[in-house]
Amino acid sequence: MARRTAPRVAVLGAAGYAGAVASALLHRHPHFELAHVTARSDAGVPLADVHPRTRVPLVLEEYDPERHADVDAAVVAYPHGAAAPVVAGLRERGVRVVDLSADFRLHDRAVYEDWYGDHGAPALLGGAVYGLPELHRDEIAGADLVANPGCYPTAAILALAPLARAGLLGDVVIDAKSGVSGAGREPTHDKHFVSVDETVTPYKVGRHRHTPEIEQELGGVRVTFTPHLVPLAHGELVSCYVTATREEDVAGLYADAYDDEPWVEVVEGPPGMQEVRETNYCRISVHGDDRTGRIIVFATIDNLWKGTSSQAVQNLNLMFGRDESEGL
Amino acid sequence: MARRTAPRVAVLGAAGYAGAVASALLHRHPHFELAHVTARSDAGVPLADVHPRTRVPLVLEEYDPERHADVDAAVVAYPHGAAAPVVAGLRERGVRVVDLSADFRLHDRAVYEDWYGDHGAPALLGGAVYGLPELHRDEIAGADLVANPGCYPTAAILALAPLARAGLLGDVVIDAKSGVSGAGREPTHDKHFVSVDETVTPYKVGRHRHTPEIEQELGGVRVTFTPHLVPLAHGELVSCYVTATREEDVAGLYADAYDDEPWVEVVEGPPGMQEVRETNYCRISVHGDDRTGRIIVFATIDNLWKGTSSQAVQNLNLMFGRDESEGL
Amino acid sequence: MARRTAPRVAVLGAAGYAGAVASALLHRHPHFELAHVTARSDAGVPLADVHPRTRVPLVLEEYDPERHADVDAAVVAYPHGAAAPVVAGLRERGVRVVDLSADFRLHDRAVYEDWYGDHGAPALLGGAVYGLPELHRDEIAGADLVANPGCYPTAAILALAPLARAGLLGDVVIDAKSGVSGAGREPTHDKHFVSVDETVTPYKVGRHRHTPEIEQELGGVRVTFTPHLVPLAHGELVSCYVTATREEDVAGLYADAYDDEPWVEVVEGPPGMQEVRETNYCRISVHGDDRTGRIIVFATIDNLWKGTSSQAVQNLNLMFGRDESEGL
Amino acid sequence: MARRTAPRVAVLGAAGYAGAVASALLHRHPHFELAHVTARSDAGVPLADVHPRTRVPLVLEEYDPERHADVDAAVVAYPHGAAAPVVAGLRERGVRVVDLSADFRLHDRAVYEDWYGDHGAPALLGGAVYGLPELHRDEIAGADLVANPGCYPTAAILALAPLARAGLLGDVVIDAKSGVSGAGREPTHDKHFVSVDETVTPYKVGRHRHTPEIEQELGGVRVTFTPHLVPLAHGELVSCYVTATREEDVAGLYADAYDDEPWVEVVEGPPGMQEVRETNYCRISVHGDDRTGRIIVFATIDNLWKGTSSQAVQNLNLMFGRDESEGL
Repeated sequence: MARRTAPRVAVLGAAGYAGAVASALLHRHPHFELAHVTARSDAGVPLADVHPRTRVPLVLEEYDPERHADVDAAVVAYPHGAAAPVVAGLRERGVRVVDLSADFRLHDRAVYEDWYGDHGAPALLGGAVYGLPELHRDEIAGADLVANPGCYPTAAILALAPLARAGLLGDVVIDAKSGVSGAGREPTHDKHFVSVDETVTPYKVGRHRHTPEIEQELGGVRVTFTPHLVPLAHGELVSCYVTATREEDVAGLYADAYDDEPWVEVVEGPPGMQEVRETNYCRISVHGDDRTGRIIVFATIDNLWKGTSSQAVQNLNLMFGRDESEGL
Repeated sequence: MARRTAPRVAVLGAAGYAGAVASALLHRHPHFELAHVTARSDAGVPLADVHPRTRVPLVLEEYDPERHADVDAAVVAYPHGAAAPVVAGLRERGVRVVDLSADFRLHDRAVYEDWYGDHGAPALLGGAVYGLPELHRDEIAGADLVANPGCYPTAAILALAPLARAGLLGDVVIDAKSGVSGAGREPTHDKHFVSVDETVTPYKVGRHRHTPEIEQELGGVRVTFTPHLVPLAHGELVSCYVTATREEDVAGLYADAYDDEPWVEVVEGPPGMQEVRETNYCRISVHGDDRTGRIIVFATIDNLWKGTSSQAVQNLNLMFGRDESEGL
Repeated sequence: MARRTAPRVAVLGAAGYAGAVASALLHRHPHFELAHVTARSDAGVPLADVHPRTRVPLVLEEYDPERHADVDAAVVAYPHGAAAPVVAGLRERGVRVVDLSADFRLHDRAVYEDWYGDHGAPALLGGAVYGLPELHRDEIAGADLVANPGCYPTAAILALAPLARAGLLGDVVIDAKSGVSGAGREPTHDKHFVSVDETVTPYKVGRHRHTPEIEQELGGVRVTFTPHLVPLAHGELVSCYVTATREEDVAGLYADAYDDEPWVEVVEGPPGMQEVRETNYCRISVHGDDRTGRIIVFATIDNLWKGTSSQAVQNLNLMFGRDESEGL
Repeated sequence: MARRTAPRVAVLGAAGYAGAVASALLHRHPHFELAHVTARSDAGVPLADVHPRTRVPLVLEEYDPERHADVDAAVVAYPHGAAAPVVAGLRERGVRVVDLSADFRLHDRAVYEDWYGDHGAPALLGGAVYGLPELHRDEIAGADLVANPGCYPTAAILALAPLARAGLLGDVVIDAKSGVSGAGREPTHDKHFVSVDETVTPYKVGRHRHTPEIEQELGGVRVTFTPHLVPLAHGELVSCYVTATREEDVAGLYADAYDDEPWVEVVEGPPGMQEVRETNYCRISVHGDDRTGRIIVFATIDNLWKGTSSQAVQNLNLMFGRDESEGL
């Protein structure tokens, strides 16, 4: 009897931070084979020259649908807008896709176009599954196209889903703090070390594109979402302020939601960004503010891992019938 | 005609971060004479050995009311509770005081005792003035005892006062981020470099003692206030989320409040913590979130300067009839 | 046929940084069983409360030779001086030891006592093996007591051993830069975030105790060794300046020495501290300075991993006949 | 009698870090008038928009020799090579110049061309004075063209000049650590926050262009000079290792050299980079390594202040007959 061969996976856009981490995880994964790593800007260069920490012995190539779609699955790490047509091409060839962009996260095309502009492959929107395993595990297992959540939404939705499900979300403020890798690898003035060091900078106030995703997955509640850049490399904390619609056993809701989840840790003390660094964990801590009646929920993740690439692998594991924690 | 001699000032508790900055500012001030610097732990050591950046050529001495109260004014940089009796002693000797502790900030003794425990000199509460010049300039000018605001309240009150005065504060969440010097100089596990680096940590959730001060100065509105430690040395940002009670020309309110203020800069872009480092400036930026109707106000200060010690000098200038910006 | 049971290992001093990393590595190691974690200061507390990142589900206990020496091996993470008697006790009970302290690193008792004072178990000095696998692999495999190298010596010796073996070391200056975790977990003024941030600080100039270890392993050459504290958590770089005794094919020496080494990477570009973080790798880069004739060698490691605890596991693997890379 | 008007100064290249600091210092200087600030890339933008911390109320303009040479002096903050022709033009119009580039630092044109390529205004080389006041105070006072030293040379030369003068420099290794602002404001991969954070990176090993300057001012001795990038914004430390040619009272040499210098502090403890931040100070500490006979000298400066722009103002003060510390 022939041994089942490992599913072959390509990572498109592997020269960015997210693509590099996805490549490293898949390269050392016991049950996938990393078949191709592609990139536009650094084509011809070994991935390990651009990102030595990955220690992936493959050369970056310019993506060529003829040559690189000979795989069972692809992780697409393209900018928003650029991803949709490439994903459509891969799907036509029968390749299963985890897409790291926002292109397939929003079910409602009108909402997408409000925040992002025209959509490049609207026909695929209906079949895409929002890839947050803790909320959509079963759908992911059967999906051919998984829209991997944004980093902020991963943390914010995990922080608030137990309250949302119980109908407790009356009024929501999400104040997020993120390391600089979340802003991508392209060198710009605002990512220059001197610009980031010894300061905290709010950005895209009232108009960050992760907002509609959070609202979709929390059942449509309106949220104020404000991200801040903090002087660290990777890691993300969301501080969520909720005016509850009624009294409730909040601790019980979180225990029910997460006691059996392998990658969510509900803790009593501070959430602990260092504890999730380069892991697939999300750590959550919940507080009541008796004076004001608010519930305050903190959640922390590594934006490049649970916030992007290790979650992509978690999704791939589910899509291919493996234990979702394999290789993580 | 004899030249007026410079008022002599003592700094009590000069070995801490705040006391050291106050000493340095007064040492180089054109119109005060720094007469004494005292400290318990480092008595006998030159201040410039403990804090070389100050370049103050005085030796720290253990405070002795007999010897060190021969001054016109004192800046008291003691912990809460420890300050009150020392301030009382100085006032009995006719010394004018800027107290950096919380002991005289709250007008309502019951509120103080709720948050801090017994008060050590309640008789002085009535005469103390809350030392935020932008709100209480005239009272400070005539005061003998000025309670210097906490660092978070300085930023939060300046951020929200224009809305408070207009009766617009319906619901307030304040999410604050502070450098580590705000937590003091004593070495502890949570201030160890390794504990702070590459992480953001909320602390004293729902119970930080700066809360009642903020509420007092904003006219009694309830606020949710959550500070976070961020990996930087000094600097502080407050992100304030307000559900306004009605529509209003918010930009106009801030222009009215601050156009003539020498140390408040209302800016359009991000507030800019680096821009206020080692200055007496507070920078404020105001945003409307059209989707949710919220007003979002950011304010940033250097917690050791406008948040503590340069504000103390601003207050001393006012108390002694000088231009409030002298030496700053 | 009965399955061989996993060797049981205790970590003594598991509440410090090094002990915690060793515990985490052994807990998830496929062929060792972490049997006990001990600590003086936090006895009774789960290790995962003190160091959540370890996720080790054991409770710290005060070390008791009667109860905790029921193991096949121990990693001893005690301060210098305190380790020797405990190691002696473990050896008497037949426990094999990797000692992280300096107590058994120097073969010459007189040299030890010059730098450290009296030795607590001189009888064991003769049998101890210096635990740098790249230099002493075979001896380690047969040893019952392995003296794990200091973090600086690990990097410095790996950087210079190929030159030392070739007799090229004429004159050596080692300028080292280390993250703060190298200075230990105890909170002190010099490890306070504010003291370390935005500065570089040389310390123990001319008298750091890692010096004699480096000299011993490099064949007795005198070195000037100067460590500096830099604002980062873990990671270490040594910059070594050598006046060579003659011309030689230096690149060839490094290729010969390290081409087959699994954990040493000789690279062309900068050494790359981020590339070794939380790994057992040492990265080395070698440069010739034609103008002065000097050879400049850089080596970087994670001081808590290859510099201490992952190297301890590498040694344990060798001592117990496993592949030296297992679990790393 | 008419009041002497303040000399008018232009800063060319004011959008970079060095030009911005020079502009800020001159704007608030009691005896110069900042007349123009010019820049190529941000022409038309207020300097305070690009560098808000300067609070300079001038608009950046593209440099126009017809309009901007109506000044008494200019600080030229151009890249090497670009400076020479502009400086020549200014000199033709009688404008006195402090040039921050390397173009006029090396007296020997051949040495310049070895390291930098063709020289754009060799006729001016003879009249330029190397602008290190502690070494060349009198010449600077009479100069029309001052070549402001590089940041590393400022620290290294001040560290070693007392030994050089005494003929003690036998063999010199300089290992330097610099904050990222030293590498300029242009965004590049190697200045991206994520590239710099948690690492130390040597660069231009054996071929940094500050080397010949150091050698020129130390009397021609050959030095090995290796700079490293460290994760901080500004500040620079040089660690200098010297094999002395003979025994000597080293402490006395430093006392003789610097006791009367207003901006050099010789200290016993660590040099203290935080103590010189945003000041014109250089702090030096000297150690003997008895075991190896080496002398180890540390010097620290703020690379943008004493290393560049405040030193430029110190030079301007001298050139215009003012106290050299004015406005610093």
